[in-house]
Amino acid sequence: MTRLLDVAKAAGVSRSTASNVFNNPEMVRPKLRQRVEKAARELGYNGPDPKGRLLRDGKFNAIAVMPPSQWGVVDSLRNPVFDLFLLGVGEVCDEIGANLVLVPDKAGNHGIKTALVDGFILGRVEHLAEVEAAQLRRLPFAVVDFDPGPNISSVRTDVRAGCHTVAKHLIELGHRRFGIVSFLRSPGPARLHPAGQSRDLHAAGNPSDQEKLQGYTDALAEAGLDIDDVPMIQADPWDLDAARMLLDEAPEATAILSMSVMQGIAVIEEARRRGRSVPGDLSVVGYNDIPDAERSDPPLTTVDGMVAQKGRVAAQIVFGGGPPRHEILQPQLIMRASTGPAPRSLEVD
Amino acid sequence: MTRLLDVAKAAGVSRSTASNVFNNPEMVRPKLRQRVEKAARELGYNGPDPKGRLLRDGKFNAIAVMPPSQWGVVDSLRNPVFDLFLLGVGEVCDEIGANLVLVPDKAGNHGIKTALVDGFILGRVEHLAEVEAAQLRRLPFAVVDFDPGPNISSVRTDVRAGCHTVAKHLIELGHRRFGIVSFLRSPGPARLHPAGQSRDLHAAGNPSDQEKLQGYTDALAEAGLDIDDVPMIQADPWDLDAARMLLDEAPEATAILSMSVMQGIAVIEEARRRGRSVPGDLSVVGYNDIPDAERSDPPLTTVDGMVAQKGRVAAQIVFGGGPPRHEILQPQLIMRASTGPAPRSLEVD
Repeated sequence: MTRLLDVAKAAGVSRSTASNVFNNPEMVRPKLRQRVEKAARELGYNGPDPKGRLLRDGKFNAIAVMPPSQWGVVDSLRNPVFDLFLLGVGEVCDEIGANLVLVPDKAGNHGIKTALVDGFILGRVEHLAEVEAAQLRRLPFAVVDFDPGPNISSVRTDVRAGCHTVAKHLIELGHRRFGIVSFLRSPGPARLHPAGQSRDLHAAGNPSDQEKLQGYTDALAEAGLDIDDVPMIQADPWDLDAARMLLDEAPEATAILSMSVMQGIAVIEEARRRGRSVPGDLSVVGYNDIPDAERSDPPLTTVDGMVAQKGRVAAQIVFGGGPPRHEILQPQLIMRASTGPAPRSLEVD
Repeated sequence: MTRLLDVAKAAGVSRSTASNVFNNPEMVRPKLRQRVEKAARELGYNGPDPKGRLLRDGKFNAIAVMPPSQWGVVDSLRNPVFDLFLLGVGEVCDEIGANLVLVPDKAGNHGIKTALVDGFILGRVEHLAEVEAAQLRRLPFAVVDFDPGPNISSVRTDVRAGCHTVAKHLIELGHRRFGIVSFLRSPGPARLHPAGQSRDLHAAGNPSDQEKLQGYTDALAEAGLDIDDVPMIQADPWDLDAARMLLDEAPEATAILSMSVMQGIAVIEEARRRGRSVPGDLSVVGYNDIPDAERSDPPLTTVDGMVAQKGRVAAQIVFGGGPPRHEILQPQLIMRASTGPAPRSLEVD
């Protein structure tokens, strides 16, 4: 097997110059570089073995993003909110020249056990047990949208505050009759939670979704309203039936609180199909901001959940090393045209 | 350091059962698995070292996608056409349970030299020299949208045929006065190529863009028209000035041929700002299809460039191994509402 020294000799340069051609090419004059590369080609030398290098310095120059459980690569790239998160991670990758590795976890924890990366971002964790496999790798990692306790780095948005703010915005506009779209985080048809049922927080999906529901609950309670009186639909964000089912179930609602920005847009479209004016007859709010929210007709009032910033901070934590960090980002209300005063004829109480 | 055998002994199982817990957990009964995992935790055993594993079987379970040169991770995720390509690659990753690694190449060929993957997809190649670094790795790879000769696998769309078809569609609608938006593949302001100048194919960007221009040229020639008489703007697909500059330069054009789907949408929007009806006064076509093309007002007539299919085929080539393959995909005209008959008052010749 050809060695670097053979290449250096054939090109008439020192071993360290030949090494620089492969490891720090910007340090070598182009002419000299071409001479070494030509000699390498002629001798069939492939450059230093990346596997050898990784065993020497232990760095892969790559960060893994583990999508929410059961999501594949395609699910991750197709979800516009997760896309924002990846953009934030990507900004840090571009700053330091690192690769971004999408490591889906569909088949248990195989990915986290074997991915050759310098650290992990766990895109969505629902149980502390899911963190164990990452701990076993003894690599830096950060957990997103979940509180894993003091010893594990985490980045979260204060979703409870964000949902409190957006619900309060509707209450201040005079709304008293609501409908809610929450998340279904397992496959299957949308689940209806009619008014009058005791509202279990687990009807809202994962722990972060449950915090959102708590934010709505708090704001309603401050206005003397009971969350149990609010019809709710629990659905996948792409479920095409959810908006229709909710408006059927809550025909007297003057405002819809959607935890999903996609479902918020879908409710606006369903209202239009029914000839109901938004926001004249019905106000609609979402959570998180994607380009489609601004382009919907009318543009959707929503919450900036700081998703790209979450990605940036998570990547900085992983690449930065150091002791565990816990970042809680503050969401911001984005007021657009899908919310307005409650219609007078329906103002009650 | 704790060995697997120590864990097996502590758990009271055979070494091969303990090995299966870490390597093929689905083969081990849950109760037994939990016992071994508990013993491993107590002894501080981290599971088999992934680095050791990769040196044994030489498989990383990952494919690298190299974005077009000078693009970072963020550029790659933000471009809606490249996003389609990644979705195609991702579908194959999900089928075989592999990771997708985005390896930007901003700093020379560092990424391709060091990324720990089973193979590469070169997202856009402009010169054969760019393929050399991939060849040196002696890993399977495929080149996209470029003809690298018989010894290197490649996937392309017949862009020349696609652009011929879409230009012919406009000619059959009676159009004789055109404007063209081509690609500028280096940073900088849009470049105007006025009518009456001899049209160098290099005014169209990279080799694939030049093939597109050739397709337009052929269709125009068949109608007795000379490409040199067509005003052309060469611009980055995101350049906000290009549509305005072209419509200023070609006020008498009744049809705009855009090589970029984004610029096609931008031309529709600019025409509307000027009070010109699309397609009443001006027909507009793009190339490639993204969701925004269907949602523009009016929806954009364009060409399905088979971008996701290109990603699928490229990934299949890389994961499949075997002798070099050369796939040429056939694009399809997508007729929507942005094209119509040439306005009568402007029909000339």
